[in-house]
Amino acid sequence: MPTITVPLPTTPYTIHLTELSRIGELVRPLIPGRRLVVVSNPVIFGHYGEPLVASLRAAGYTVTTCLIPPGERFKTLKTLQTIHDHCHQTRIDRQSGVIALGGGVVGDLTGFAAATWLRGVAVIQVPTSLLAMVDASIGGKTGVNTPQGKNLVGAFHQPRCVLIDPTVLATLPSREWRSGLAEVIKYGVIWDKDLFTLLEHVPHLARQPKVPPEILMELLTRSAQAKAEVVSKDEKESGLRALLNYGHTIGHAIETATHYRTYTHGEAVGLGMKAAGQLAARLGIWSDSDAARQAALIAAAGLPTQFPHLDPDVLMQLMQGDKKVQNDHVRFILPTTLGHATLHDRVNPDEVRAVLQELVSKGDQKS
Amino acid sequence: MPTITVPLPTTPYTIHLTELSRIGELVRPLIPGRRLVVVSNPVIFGHYGEPLVASLRAAGYTVTTCLIPPGERFKTLKTLQTIHDHCHQTRIDRQSGVIALGGGVVGDLTGFAAATWLRGVAVIQVPTSLLAMVDASIGGKTGVNTPQGKNLVGAFHQPRCVLIDPTVLATLPSREWRSGLAEVIKYGVIWDKDLFTLLEHVPHLARQPKVPPEILMELLTRSAQAKAEVVSKDEKESGLRALLNYGHTIGHAIETATHYRTYTHGEAVGLGMKAAGQLAARLGIWSDSDAARQAALIAAAGLPTQFPHLDPDVLMQLMQGDKKVQNDHVRFILPTTLGHATLHDRVNPDEVRAVLQELVSKGDQKS
Repeated sequence: MPTITVPLPTTPYTIHLTELSRIGELVRPLIPGRRLVVVSNPVIFGHYGEPLVASLRAAGYTVTTCLIPPGERFKTLKTLQTIHDHCHQTRIDRQSGVIALGGGVVGDLTGFAAATWLRGVAVIQVPTSLLAMVDASIGGKTGVNTPQGKNLVGAFHQPRCVLIDPTVLATLPSREWRSGLAEVIKYGVIWDKDLFTLLEHVPHLARQPKVPPEILMELLTRSAQAKAEVVSKDEKESGLRALLNYGHTIGHAIETATHYRTYTHGEAVGLGMKAAGQLAARLGIWSDSDAARQAALIAAAGLPTQFPHLDPDVLMQLMQGDKKVQNDHVRFILPTTLGHATLHDRVNPDEVRAVLQELVSKGDQKS
Repeated sequence: MPTITVPLPTTPYTIHLTELSRIGELVRPLIPGRRLVVVSNPVIFGHYGEPLVASLRAAGYTVTTCLIPPGERFKTLKTLQTIHDHCHQTRIDRQSGVIALGGGVVGDLTGFAAATWLRGVAVIQVPTSLLAMVDASIGGKTGVNTPQGKNLVGAFHQPRCVLIDPTVLATLPSREWRSGLAEVIKYGVIWDKDLFTLLEHVPHLARQPKVPPEILMELLTRSAQAKAEVVSKDEKESGLRALLNYGHTIGHAIETATHYRTYTHGEAVGLGMKAAGQLAARLGIWSDSDAARQAALIAAAGLPTQFPHLDPDVLMQLMQGDKKVQNDHVRFILPTTLGHATLHDRVNPDEVRAVLQELVSKGDQKS
């Protein structure tokens, strides 16, 4: 089974693409204590909790479970306190560890709880959604949503290892599969041209059960590899890692404007990538044909390609409050060729507004 | 003016013992953005806010202030959110920074707010209490108190620099001065025998205004140096740094048992050191004469030397829940000679109980 190393200078770790039931043997050398907490939500734990806990117990751990309600609206300081309470009651110390079994919400919350309990205990990420497998579980970003916004409060806290079992995607709702594809497409555009081409040739890309297992493994491995490479070259998001925000500047604004209700994160990122691609083409730094290929791939992934009910001025304003702002300038990551992108600090706001205007207009749903 | 380097591998920084009005020139090379938030409480800001802010503005920064209520009972997640709100409203980004002007509560809260806002922004510590100068401001420990306990939730987040102005101690309440001395005595016992001897020879040690400025500077410099040396050899408290918990295992239990109302942190640590010293002597690893010298110095510092109303069994139970627990064994830091201490994992609980019993007994107040 493939493994990918994330060679961070102080906290290197391994991403294992393997069966869930191997968790015990993988964790044993990494967590010296005997107590573990598994944080999950009831739906996911119902599917995969039993084999996971059995494997950890077979490896000698005393395992308790902390179930939190599913959904982004529970990614709050209050749920964080629930996890801290559980850590306190089960006497999790610095030799113990926490396992995040779930999608991005479980991963971000559990990672932040581990980052802040006793000023930092070990966390193992076991992502169960495509989005979490290729993005959220790798790189140590953790956090919660607060009244100020999404993910403005959090910490960098690297996992001790990541276990990705592709077979758990069988129970993933199809909208979540398509949403995760947005991040996979992102890696194709900014980092790995071969991944982009591979995606273009997957028949029925939008329907996970129809994707052959060997192609699924290839998509997951290439995506995790891309994320690992970028993160290991820039752990704290001071430079290169900003590339991973491709599609996210506009994407976050769309999510905020729609109160996180209309679009999933991946759908918003897909829209953001389409807009950023059109912006890059408009500015003459990306070819029209590559921008069109990206738009076609986003559509083939079953992602929305327009946002008909949004006001470009509202989106512009929201981007001014985004954390990727430096001294009031909105930063954009823009592709240059397939597999490469660069940071642009001073894009003319009129150009951005013009692109947004095109995407809010009705009709031409597949352009 | 003395400077001390904290040579951490990834985040080295300098402790400056100098005038408050030099803050602007010291911060300028460290924080590239133009926005700063000063977090303080109204009392301290009333004394020292004006020259601090003036110096920062003269260095070209746009400065806003976020005042939080004074007192340990406000070291909560709720106050943390107040600081995050202020960061959001004043658009603090990753190029900006946060200045903590105050004692341990302001320093810990502001440090944790900086650690978690946008997953980490720069913080400068400007401690105004003796305790904060010699302990809390150095080493990157940040956190809040939660229903689970004191400082169980927090993060390691190193400051970009620390500015210590000894003259601000003129307005420090005398009980806080004496409390801070507990940590200074601690460094003498665990790390710096010359500091211990110096303390023994300070006339009127318990009364700050009577301590000559050059001796005060020597106490501060040696204490900060001790903390910097220990911290730089063990940033994340996996080994050596545990020495700094000398007196804290019993101290924390005393604070918890009295709901943080009867004793200040320093007073509780003083009691904890006295108990740990007696325990070490009882176990034959420290001389009775050194234990007696420590007890005499704690008394000379005007710190309490007994805790007459506490139940040893309650304290024993509370120590089982302390975060310095590893797999149920309570850890004690115990002195071996003046200037040296070691970690003991498996002290017989009966011996601990016997020492506590001596200290809860009435009479013999100065022993």
